[in-house]
Amino acid sequence: MPRGASAALFLPQLQGLRHEPGPLHRQLYERLRQAILTGVLPARSRLPSTRALAADLGVSRNTVELAFSQLDAEGLLERRVGSGSVVALPEHARPPHGSPRAPTRRPAPAPPLRARARRVAELTLPDQPTGILPLTPCMPALDAFPLSLWRRSLQRQGRQLGTRLLTYGEEAGWRPLREAVAAYVGASRGVRCGWQQVLIVSSTQQALDLVSRLLLEEGDAVWMEEPGYLGARAAFSSVGARLVPVPVDEEGLRVDAGLTRAPKARLAYVTPSYQYPLGLTMSFARRLALLEWARASGAWVVEDDYDSEFRYTSRPLAAMQGLDDSGRVLYVGTFNKVMFPSLRLAYLVVPEPLVEPFRRAKSLADGHTPLLSQAAMADFMERGHFTAHLRQMRLLYAERREALLDALRRHAGDRFQHVGSVEAGMHVAVKLAGRGDDVALVERAAGRGLDTRPLSAHYLGRKRASGLVLGFSGVGPAALRAAAASLVSVL
Amino acid sequence: MPRGASAALFLPQLQGLRHEPGPLHRQLYERLRQAILTGVLPARSRLPSTRALAADLGVSRNTVELAFSQLDAEGLLERRVGSGSVVALPEHARPPHGSPRAPTRRPAPAPPLRARARRVAELTLPDQPTGILPLTPCMPALDAFPLSLWRRSLQRQGRQLGTRLLTYGEEAGWRPLREAVAAYVGASRGVRCGWQQVLIVSSTQQALDLVSRLLLEEGDAVWMEEPGYLGARAAFSSVGARLVPVPVDEEGLRVDAGLTRAPKARLAYVTPSYQYPLGLTMSFARRLALLEWARASGAWVVEDDYDSEFRYTSRPLAAMQGLDDSGRVLYVGTFNKVMFPSLRLAYLVVPEPLVEPFRRAKSLADGHTPLLSQAAMADFMERGHFTAHLRQMRLLYAERREALLDALRRHAGDRFQHVGSVEAGMHVAVKLAGRGDDVALVERAAGRGLDTRPLSAHYLGRKRASGLVLGFSGVGPAALRAAAASLVSVL
Repeated sequence: MPRGASAALFLPQLQGLRHEPGPLHRQLYERLRQAILTGVLPARSRLPSTRALAADLGVSRNTVELAFSQLDAEGLLERRVGSGSVVALPEHARPPHGSPRAPTRRPAPAPPLRARARRVAELTLPDQPTGILPLTPCMPALDAFPLSLWRRSLQRQGRQLGTRLLTYGEEAGWRPLREAVAAYVGASRGVRCGWQQVLIVSSTQQALDLVSRLLLEEGDAVWMEEPGYLGARAAFSSVGARLVPVPVDEEGLRVDAGLTRAPKARLAYVTPSYQYPLGLTMSFARRLALLEWARASGAWVVEDDYDSEFRYTSRPLAAMQGLDDSGRVLYVGTFNKVMFPSLRLAYLVVPEPLVEPFRRAKSLADGHTPLLSQAAMADFMERGHFTAHLRQMRLLYAERREALLDALRRHAGDRFQHVGSVEAGMHVAVKLAGRGDDVALVERAAGRGLDTRPLSAHYLGRKRASGLVLGFSGVGPAALRAAAASLVSVL
Repeated sequence: MPRGASAALFLPQLQGLRHEPGPLHRQLYERLRQAILTGVLPARSRLPSTRALAADLGVSRNTVELAFSQLDAEGLLERRVGSGSVVALPEHARPPHGSPRAPTRRPAPAPPLRARARRVAELTLPDQPTGILPLTPCMPALDAFPLSLWRRSLQRQGRQLGTRLLTYGEEAGWRPLREAVAAYVGASRGVRCGWQQVLIVSSTQQALDLVSRLLLEEGDAVWMEEPGYLGARAAFSSVGARLVPVPVDEEGLRVDAGLTRAPKARLAYVTPSYQYPLGLTMSFARRLALLEWARASGAWVVEDDYDSEFRYTSRPLAAMQGLDDSGRVLYVGTFNKVMFPSLRLAYLVVPEPLVEPFRRAKSLADGHTPLLSQAAMADFMERGHFTAHLRQMRLLYAERREALLDALRRHAGDRFQHVGSVEAGMHVAVKLAGRGDDVALVERAAGRGLDTRPLSAHYLGRKRASGLVLGFSGVGPAALRAAAASLVSVL
């Protein structure tokens, strides 16, 4: 068995061995045993050699040897001199006196997936980073997050509200947070809404999921920016919508192309502030053209205003929502990028007639969003900590952005071409000179501990640019410079 | 305008006036203005008299007078001597120099709902209580919740994990919590699973929603307990499933009736531990019959084990999941009732082949569940606080249950007939002697501040028992006795 396969097979189960109590060999034994009994490691699957596994895990060979012997003694492994070990047949694996707790069941055959489940199985979902690696797109600077101020907001609200914060919450969200969001998006983004139009959700993904489930029917055409955001694609196609790629140029979505390809589309999804992934701003003329189409055809426009907080030189254009006089725009914003990802708070501003349907859809999906984080977020905003944090992050990210672009220029010269036109956001897109294979490049970069995304994966059609999506917000200038050098070395 | 209508119209917007800074008349003016500008109060709608509104809000008439004069001066109200005030036309309502922040848009006409949205609009969703009233079903004793221990778990985990807790989480849940849940349901409910089969979700509702979206196609038949839980009904019918009512007798779901009515159903939803709403336990023979049908026909069984923690005399039967040898059972449990509702943590245990599809469905629905509460919950369980809390709640709820049933017997005699057969749960169901109208009774009870539910609303078919679902867990014996007396007085 090749080394690479061993690591790929085992690492998810075997991570974090050193952070837990008890001897390492015992931990390793427990996890392997669990994996065998639950069918994660099916019968007859071959384990790596003790030497290879020890090297992969960074433990002594003796540790692995002890774990394997114990499994062998229990009849869970068959060890063969020279040819390594294989997982024993499930019959052997059943403990002699099956207790109700032991997961001894034979793994059931995979049931045939029907249409809905198949659709979900076939979706390309955006990768969710779990660690903080250099170049991860849209990862905030967690080391610079004002954690103690945030904890104080949590504690203050927890104390002040006591049991009121323990009971059920309003489906549409905690009212003080809805009010704070309405005031914030009004003042900073020109969004025109009453607080009643603000629905608190857990993420942009949940907002897009609710939109899909309420506003789209199977077969409906949806204009998607080409290239565009994978999470939106997944949400819309999970309900059977037909995705229509509409090219993006330096002015943003080419509304004329949309009109040619699918004039009767029901919805258009756009990221006008800082197009994902290309980092362009949609022009005023295009915004008006898109709104005019939506008004005339009765289509919906979903304005995903992620990252709009981060502009480093120019003033941003106000949100499209504020230009819309016919109630066709649904506006999405998130706190998970400007605060921290595990917060799980985002918001959706909907036209008045959609307030009640969306409240019901949210109730159906998960009841409501947790109250403590909502109350703490409202407190954090009301005390001015949120805008202060944004100001600080703008300075930090502007510096990081420059550091990354500088280092790329220095090391790569013109082998990378930076695409974006505005100094904004938390990532940049670069195109590869020539016709390089960006997927292979991303894999080579991953070997160096770099978390980049292939630009080509963001296209729906066959005409794809090759390049990389590179985050600059998560780590400091020195780490970015090192990452850029390392990236260029695998070009 | 009658007083009642005035209160109903205004109170949602006007609640909490006294808890905010600034003079009352200014607050009232701001809120009315907002309501007018956003179309919540449409043009030509009539406002209550200053006297009636002042009385409703418990403020002085002068306060209302000041607010109305200001709105009048701005052209937002037309005041007429004798006939009260009406909201001015939207043209008048636009401020002279429309700033982008002012929500001046004419309310858009309600868009026609299409199939998916119509389905959601037509669902009967369970009422979500927002306050703690006597008799609210399934409301935990929040006053007895060990809040300081819980806060310590939150703080300990927050400190220990630092930024690790800020970043993205695994879609299927925080691993230590998945492990703690697997151990807990194994030991206490006889559920057989590896931790990898445990998916952390935000609520039973989200679990049922994910089940519906993955396992059901439009038109699929689903066996529903008759009477049964409204939240499950809503989840399954939102994806277009055909709900088949299957009667419940003293042994639980009548599997024979299901076999007659819809032998080819794709899924059966059951609450075997403590049937909702009737409070019966499904017999062992029925459980085996249901599993046998599922095995033979390839159908799924959703075992909603809500409230199973609360048994006051007998030992509970173990979960059906532990009897299932063919991987057809999906097991659902929740922390939102045994801890507190706004926690938003629940779990779904799925057969091995469904682990990956459900992980993807969760990712699509909302990314993942917040990390801090998951980490704190795992900590709370590992330290034994969870089982200690359960022990305490069992004593408390047993006492409350007795208090309510005693008081009902004393006051109502045989006008109420208690249905349940086991001493368990957080509610009881009572039937009305004769053919009383339970919906009208619930309304009369609401007039006395009692939050009860009509039994008849839990039926799908036309043959409905009339009665009440009464919670006993939220308030103490004295309050329950008072509530029972008050309830009987409106019989």
